[in-house]
Amino acid sequence: MGTAQFDRIALIGIGLIGSSIARGVREKGLAREIVISTRSLDTLKRAEELQLGDHYTPSTAEAVKDADLVIVSVPVGASESVAMQIAAHLKPGAIVTDVGSTKASVIAQMAPHLPSHVHFIPGHPLAGTENSGPDAGFADLFKGRWCIFTPLPDTDPNALARLVAFWEALGSKTDQMEPEHHDKVLAIVSHLPHIIAYNIVGTADDLAAVTESEVIKYSASGFRDFTRLAASDPTMWRDICLHNKDAILEMLARFSEDLASLQRSIRWGEGDKLFELFSRTRTVRRSIIDAGQDVNVPDFGRHSLDKKA
Amino acid sequence: MGTAQFDRIALIGIGLIGSSIARGVREKGLAREIVISTRSLDTLKRAEELQLGDHYTPSTAEAVKDADLVIVSVPVGASESVAMQIAAHLKPGAIVTDVGSTKASVIAQMAPHLPSHVHFIPGHPLAGTENSGPDAGFADLFKGRWCIFTPLPDTDPNALARLVAFWEALGSKTDQMEPEHHDKVLAIVSHLPHIIAYNIVGTADDLAAVTESEVIKYSASGFRDFTRLAASDPTMWRDICLHNKDAILEMLARFSEDLASLQRSIRWGEGDKLFELFSRTRTVRRSIIDAGQDVNVPDFGRHSLDKKA
Repeated sequence: MGTAQFDRIALIGIGLIGSSIARGVREKGLAREIVISTRSLDTLKRAEELQLGDHYTPSTAEAVKDADLVIVSVPVGASESVAMQIAAHLKPGAIVTDVGSTKASVIAQMAPHLPSHVHFIPGHPLAGTENSGPDAGFADLFKGRWCIFTPLPDTDPNALARLVAFWEALGSKTDQMEPEHHDKVLAIVSHLPHIIAYNIVGTADDLAAVTESEVIKYSASGFRDFTRLAASDPTMWRDICLHNKDAILEMLARFSEDLASLQRSIRWGEGDKLFELFSRTRTVRRSIIDAGQDVNVPDFGRHSLDKKA
Repeated sequence: MGTAQFDRIALIGIGLIGSSIARGVREKGLAREIVISTRSLDTLKRAEELQLGDHYTPSTAEAVKDADLVIVSVPVGASESVAMQIAAHLKPGAIVTDVGSTKASVIAQMAPHLPSHVHFIPGHPLAGTENSGPDAGFADLFKGRWCIFTPLPDTDPNALARLVAFWEALGSKTDQMEPEHHDKVLAIVSHLPHIIAYNIVGTADDLAAVTESEVIKYSASGFRDFTRLAASDPTMWRDICLHNKDAILEMLARFSEDLASLQRSIRWGEGDKLFELFSRTRTVRRSIIDAGQDVNVPDFGRHSLDKKA
């Protein structure tokens, strides 16, 4: 147990991210008390069964009372509603942060409602798995992953430093950027890949010429890599699409242009162009492995895991 | 060591697949002798250093002499050239097979050249990793994976049974279908996913607004899943695109239609449609795990592998 960084942490939302924070905070002793609040009574009950916190309440207003750190971990489309519920009950000097995958929209939804006597510091831990809900979380989820902050112009540097220290204690590497730049970066590294994955899995699922059982049976030849992303939480991803619309539409337009050109190369048998693209992309994976952002084992190490099983 | 199923096996091509066959044959004692032939002298030398076979020759004609089983493991575009080189030197009664990812094209390229006194049985093991070359192979590559045969109408059932037994001894599950159906199935489960992965990695690589280092740094949020497929062998995939053109173009057209519709839903804020698609695709992954075609651990088990490292 380290030294508690906060007396009381309120977690609004206790899904994959919220429950991973709860477990991490417990494991590292980062707070004296954890208060958990979520709208669904079933989820709240499950969080209590898993002993993720010290207090449990369906009332977000009650949860944030006396909390020094409030972390909002809900689908981004629910941010404004949460801000309105908690605004009047926040302790002066409290830090309010979130974990949303889009930042400009979350700021637009929350900032106008929050009182000036709290520190609102938007954040986004780039961590997750395809599973969701309080059972899916684990304390190591943030280990070695980036957490990006998009502080507002008037953010108090001391409050920011405390929040950075908190996420680093959970194992994150931290970074800062403008909200609009965050939304562009995430549109390409996360939102576009998820949307494309959802789309290709949908296309395959619709095919009559090839039966669904064949798609499943032979999925190891490439298709299955997409199904992991396409198994992510539907509510979360609906909200991301609606709340980072402009950046996503721009990336989709670029992707579609490039795909049209690739399709043309296939139709006209332009082998050299295909070879050039297929060679160029190969080096990108090498860079990702060198940067420590993926495991350096073929096939994501599925063979090693098969053997263990 | 089991009983040798063949006296002499000739492997034409000794990349990821060829070298995995060599290692499997050795480990299970499936042949008395392995002859290895490949066009590149460097690769041939490397195969010898790795002791993958008993004899090594750059001459495919010499390699197939007296071989009971000839396995052609080359990029599909090289199939006709190999067939022409070996045709006159094949032993009567020999089985000639291949491992190509497209079947109608391989049959069209090879069948006309092969003499009627050999058994030509096209095959395709659905196994691989993003790595290539003789060093990348391993004996377990085919374990639990499908190997699909597309026998010609006049295929000798005994020869087919021997080839099936061989692949099953390497650990494969086996299946049979028409070449054209194979090509359609693979277009959706393998070729489209690879092409989409190559395309998205190319799009990301081209972005000026987001630097390449940001794409690499934050790739764990989704993008990196695509980079594995996009790191596959460029020559192999150029040839697949050129030799399964019709099926691939059909799948690309369906994918693009679906993507245009999804893009429209994002633009017009149709949350219900997005939620419906994102929920439907989630069940597909569950089916793949239930069918034993992927590991049942979040994030492909990267966390477990990180801990081991």
